[in-house]
Amino acid sequence: MKLDPGPSPPPVKGFRFSGVHGGLKSRGRRDFALIVADKPAACAAVFTLNRQAAAPVVIARDHAGRGRAQAIMINSGNANAATGEKGMKFAEWSCRELASRLGIATELVVPCSTGIIGVQLERTPFARAISLGVDGLSRKGFAAAARAIMTSDAFPKWAHRKVVSESGTAMVAGMAKGAGMIHPNMATMLAFVLTDAPLATGAASSILRDAVASTFNRISVDGDTSTNDTVVLLASGQSAGEQIENEGTAGYADVCAAVREVMDDLARMVVRDGEGGTHVVDIVVAGAADADAADKVARAIGRSLLFKCAVAGADPNWGRIVCAIGNSEVDCDSDRISIDVDDVALVRGGTVVSDEAVRSARKTMRHEAWTLRVGLGDGAGSATVITCDLTEDYVRFNSAYSS
Amino acid sequence: MKLDPGPSPPPVKGFRFSGVHGGLKSRGRRDFALIVADKPAACAAVFTLNRQAAAPVVIARDHAGRGRAQAIMINSGNANAATGEKGMKFAEWSCRELASRLGIATELVVPCSTGIIGVQLERTPFARAISLGVDGLSRKGFAAAARAIMTSDAFPKWAHRKVVSESGTAMVAGMAKGAGMIHPNMATMLAFVLTDAPLATGAASSILRDAVASTFNRISVDGDTSTNDTVVLLASGQSAGEQIENEGTAGYADVCAAVREVMDDLARMVVRDGEGGTHVVDIVVAGAADADAADKVARAIGRSLLFKCAVAGADPNWGRIVCAIGNSEVDCDSDRISIDVDDVALVRGGTVVSDEAVRSARKTMRHEAWTLRVGLGDGAGSATVITCDLTEDYVRFNSAYSS
Repeated sequence: MKLDPGPSPPPVKGFRFSGVHGGLKSRGRRDFALIVADKPAACAAVFTLNRQAAAPVVIARDHAGRGRAQAIMINSGNANAATGEKGMKFAEWSCRELASRLGIATELVVPCSTGIIGVQLERTPFARAISLGVDGLSRKGFAAAARAIMTSDAFPKWAHRKVVSESGTAMVAGMAKGAGMIHPNMATMLAFVLTDAPLATGAASSILRDAVASTFNRISVDGDTSTNDTVVLLASGQSAGEQIENEGTAGYADVCAAVREVMDDLARMVVRDGEGGTHVVDIVVAGAADADAADKVARAIGRSLLFKCAVAGADPNWGRIVCAIGNSEVDCDSDRISIDVDDVALVRGGTVVSDEAVRSARKTMRHEAWTLRVGLGDGAGSATVITCDLTEDYVRFNSAYSS
Repeated sequence: MKLDPGPSPPPVKGFRFSGVHGGLKSRGRRDFALIVADKPAACAAVFTLNRQAAAPVVIARDHAGRGRAQAIMINSGNANAATGEKGMKFAEWSCRELASRLGIATELVVPCSTGIIGVQLERTPFARAISLGVDGLSRKGFAAAARAIMTSDAFPKWAHRKVVSESGTAMVAGMAKGAGMIHPNMATMLAFVLTDAPLATGAASSILRDAVASTFNRISVDGDTSTNDTVVLLASGQSAGEQIENEGTAGYADVCAAVREVMDDLARMVVRDGEGGTHVVDIVVAGAADADAADKVARAIGRSLLFKCAVAGADPNWGRIVCAIGNSEVDCDSDRISIDVDDVALVRGGTVVSDEAVRSARKTMRHEAWTLRVGLGDGAGSATVITCDLTEDYVRFNSAYSS
């Protein structure tokens, strides 16, 4: 399992970064990150659907929802979730504090927290973190920031794409944190994607929604949605070219594709992060009555503990897949089900093809990454979900993790 | 963990039983059971909601739906699920075969299968099993039948209650199979409850629905609903007393309570069956806006892998419980949440009570069985779900299980 994001992205015009140890975590580990734009940037964001959203999420939803932002402030080690009115006041204070240090409006700060739930943050170390973070801002601070947002992550996650057009070159670079199957209690998924492309807020918003739908919203780990999940896209507009207003503007498609690719890289790194022995599976369902039915079937398979255990054991247990399909609430004729493991045809017409096919599938399932293709023979709807296996280590780590 | 159902139930008037080795399983293990009434009995049944219901489920739904049945035929070792048209023809044939041996109508046979999915049954050993089963029928065969329906179960499951009324005594006895967290691929949940109380079909049906709603439908193991789950209630009417037509008839409430208690015992045995080290937790949610909201919250907690891991590790990680509540799609004010572990007040007003409370809760969570009480402070709705922990053994067994 590749646990290395490669070299960190080149600078993105108009942004500075820092990642420092402010004292929220022990042993000098980085725990505070800043992403600051030179001027207010076009901003779009999506947040957790968990009803017990953390205090910073409530504020970030308000601030980011205004369409412009200049600073993303992230602390790791404490989620500021389930902290009540006191936690909300803390998050508000922290935004004011950073805004005053940067000389910008409080509403231009998007706050994010990740870490333990139910514990209050303290102002003294946090104020020190803000101070160190502001002092440390640099064009080259991307990697330091990406490291500072980590909690149980085994490796920092970043990706970038260059967008070349007639009017010049734009950069899209993103960082994320979140670990597949280990410590998901602290594994809030955070992702920040920055570009110097001249996106209007409307374009940033539609690009973000499009890209998230096919990337972060397609990964399924353990079904527990965190109280703090946040994805933010900021566009500084410092690269050359005309402002990209909407889907109809030249350049929109290229920037959208680049953002989607960066998010796809990041989402896969989140699934991959866990244990060296885990497997990543793309579950591709086709032939459903419509896309919604395909999505339901893919998610039912990706959510089945029995399927996830079979993946861990490289066991081509197709009965569990059929059982999971039956739990999806989608009606389909079992006689038409086909199942492929990469290029191995395992099931045709609802029946296993041969013992040889089972042996080949078992061999393929030992690979770190493979694709499960399920055909329902019912229509043209298709959907993909990316998941990983359920390992003994997941249970061991999450049983041992002390509250 | 108590893995012993105690002495087997006394006879239930009007029923004979057998449990034999017919050759479907290896090494001489019992794999075929019969429950046969002397005459057609009032019958009510509920079945899996899995859309890929097995062939015997399709037939049993039809036969039991007619309101009278005389024989329940169960084989273990093969679920006859995902077996297409051929599997359906097999199930039909097996009912005809047993009916002809017993000299009854085919529609009076309720067939059930449990075991591996996707493999065809063979007629020769099955015909032998039927023959041996019919020959072995006895008033005292209850325990043999209860053993023959086991697959990965660590112990046979049975329970009984005597109903004493003015008109005499009736017996309610039930058997079940199904194992909590181990091999749930083979852990179809089957339960058969027999009574000699003089229930009309309508009364049997409403008693079954009432009892299942508060017992089998309240256990949550791993979220995978089997293709074969079946619960059947048969009433021979051989005990003394007036026919019980409906809820208004004298005796209805007593029989209903007895059936519910028997099913509650059986359901708890299913949750308990797994590994010696597992824990059983009653999740009681109160103070919800209504019963439906309480149910959603209780199920969200019972389904959370993170909570289940915390139970395995005896970790009073209340943040995970709050996070699970947030994933239930029920809005509630986190400042009003209270959490108790047995008699330990862990959280009040959304905040942990004290370090001492955490220590006490940790101690209590080491017990084999304990109750989690969650208060939402929002209304009078309450609900209970019974669940068990997620252990490394679950993953180990389900990864190793060969398809």
